[in-house]
Amino acid sequence: MIRVGINGYGTIGRRVADAVMLQDDMVLVGVTKMKPDYRAAIAAQKGIPVYTPNAEAAAAFEKARMAHAGDLSKLLSEVDVVVDATPELGAEYKPVFAKHGRKAIFQGGEEHELTGLSFVSQVNFDAAKGRDAVRVVSCNTTALCRLLGSLRQGFGVSKARAVLARRAADPDEISKGPIDAIVLDPSSLPSHHGPDVQSVMPDLDITTMAIKVPETHMHLHSVIATLGGKPTREQVLEQLQRTPRMMLVEGKAGFKSTAQVIDWAREVGRPRNDVYEAVIWRESVTMVGNEVYMFMGVHQEAIVTPENVDAIRAVCGGYSAGDSMRTTDATLGIRHPA
Amino acid sequence: MIRVGINGYGTIGRRVADAVMLQDDMVLVGVTKMKPDYRAAIAAQKGIPVYTPNAEAAAAFEKARMAHAGDLSKLLSEVDVVVDATPELGAEYKPVFAKHGRKAIFQGGEEHELTGLSFVSQVNFDAAKGRDAVRVVSCNTTALCRLLGSLRQGFGVSKARAVLARRAADPDEISKGPIDAIVLDPSSLPSHHGPDVQSVMPDLDITTMAIKVPETHMHLHSVIATLGGKPTREQVLEQLQRTPRMMLVEGKAGFKSTAQVIDWAREVGRPRNDVYEAVIWRESVTMVGNEVYMFMGVHQEAIVTPENVDAIRAVCGGYSAGDSMRTTDATLGIRHPA
Repeated sequence: MIRVGINGYGTIGRRVADAVMLQDDMVLVGVTKMKPDYRAAIAAQKGIPVYTPNAEAAAAFEKARMAHAGDLSKLLSEVDVVVDATPELGAEYKPVFAKHGRKAIFQGGEEHELTGLSFVSQVNFDAAKGRDAVRVVSCNTTALCRLLGSLRQGFGVSKARAVLARRAADPDEISKGPIDAIVLDPSSLPSHHGPDVQSVMPDLDITTMAIKVPETHMHLHSVIATLGGKPTREQVLEQLQRTPRMMLVEGKAGFKSTAQVIDWAREVGRPRNDVYEAVIWRESVTMVGNEVYMFMGVHQEAIVTPENVDAIRAVCGGYSAGDSMRTTDATLGIRHPA
Repeated sequence: MIRVGINGYGTIGRRVADAVMLQDDMVLVGVTKMKPDYRAAIAAQKGIPVYTPNAEAAAAFEKARMAHAGDLSKLLSEVDVVVDATPELGAEYKPVFAKHGRKAIFQGGEEHELTGLSFVSQVNFDAAKGRDAVRVVSCNTTALCRLLGSLRQGFGVSKARAVLARRAADPDEISKGPIDAIVLDPSSLPSHHGPDVQSVMPDLDITTMAIKVPETHMHLHSVIATLGGKPTREQVLEQLQRTPRMMLVEGKAGFKSTAQVIDWAREVGRPRNDVYEAVIWRESVTMVGNEVYMFMGVHQEAIVTPENVDAIRAVCGGYSAGDSMRTTDATLGIRHPA
């Protein structure tokens, strides 16, 4: 049994907490939370012990007459692995985790250098074995690595170019914009996503551009990749079809935009309408010479959930990538070919 | 004096009408309009004779007790050139214009085959000389042709790839969406824009992808072009700087998104906040090997206005491209280098 603590209970922490509770080989010892809000109340209703990361948070919980289970040190004393899901405070917390001798999983908002290993399950699971700390990369990087890792495995990739249209805000973020503009994000090129993919796949020639658009339902990537040789469109589709954590959808089945993908997730009963898969529009997959074009949707809130679960297993050792991914995917309801 | 009539008084017709009235060598005989709405009232206040294209429209004007100047035949009998700015009804009207022996300018919503010449002033002005009809291409195609025509002239272009994030609706269109989604537009690739650019620049290797996003303030193109040789970034910027109808903006001057470009146009007093220029973010211009990357903004409502004015002169003959463009640009307040 791997005893897991989660530091931070926001967009990622909440999801990883639920996913950890679904694993037969893990136990969720508790989470930390700064504010005694409705999310803390729901965690308590689920039976999740809620710890407070500092005295200020403890005072807030006490003032709100909401129970808390103790401080971060107490949580750390009871776990094997901690998942840091704070808003980019990993560098601050890393020495605290180390002082307690705990292995740690950080998120993509941190620098690659914080752990020296940027993690995507199907690309470099084995490299994480036995390490004290790894960084699960961000949503966009995770999706690009899944896709480009698969294309590289199937055909070789000599060059990748992608334009990322990013959702302006998550559905619960009411202070972010824009509401009527396309924001250059940033206006200088390339965006950080290309180099971030290279933190996982160092020898890949990739350049990315990013814009921010007024919607909350997923990022959308326009991908152009130059392949080794000239596979047929059907061969590319077959390769994607047999890649874990990829989902192929079609406009003629009703998927006209990112919003229908989220609606699909609501309809099939995914918790929080989470889409863990990188979503490829089948009819967008097009070969022009040796270039493949496609559209890929990325559910920013959800896609790294399975990677975090795998990363916990990877740093503990004793699992193969395939075994961990199959287990994670079975518990989360993700189609897992082969 | 070129006597001009405009068939349709919507997004394009209104703008071309005002632009024609600013030309010393043209007279606006009148416009046609279907509905006696506030736009018709403003046209009348400006002294523009408003004609009705059919009996239904005439009846509507009479019922609204709004004056009209006669029917389309009457308008056509008094003009040399008609600009068709109807919602893609050009194929229906072309024989009517021809019956009256009038030269005609159509818009990018029509098929290339309607006129056999797709027009962008700085690429193929001379090819329009003396023709009975030309098609001014759509906003996105116009911008891509200006940019790629300039890059081709300066350096050669062996390949162009672009991802177009399209505004979901114009500011006055209240029935269009989406309001919270990125729409694949279309989900199959490539989008029609690449072939449409080839209707102006037939030998250009270009592929485009398009998405639709919930905002009204301009389209944004993410452009990747493979150049002949490897010019420096500064050489590319110099080339763009000396190209007519291109505007270079910078994030550090406050241009963070498409919305600030429109705000700039409001602030400098452009009519209807129109941006006639293709707008390039200076800091986005980046060389990676022999590929140049950049972001380009396109004001969908306005960018084809100067092309329509030039097209009128082109079909009448007797003007050089440079003379026509310089005159048009001076009257519209567009910076025109050299």
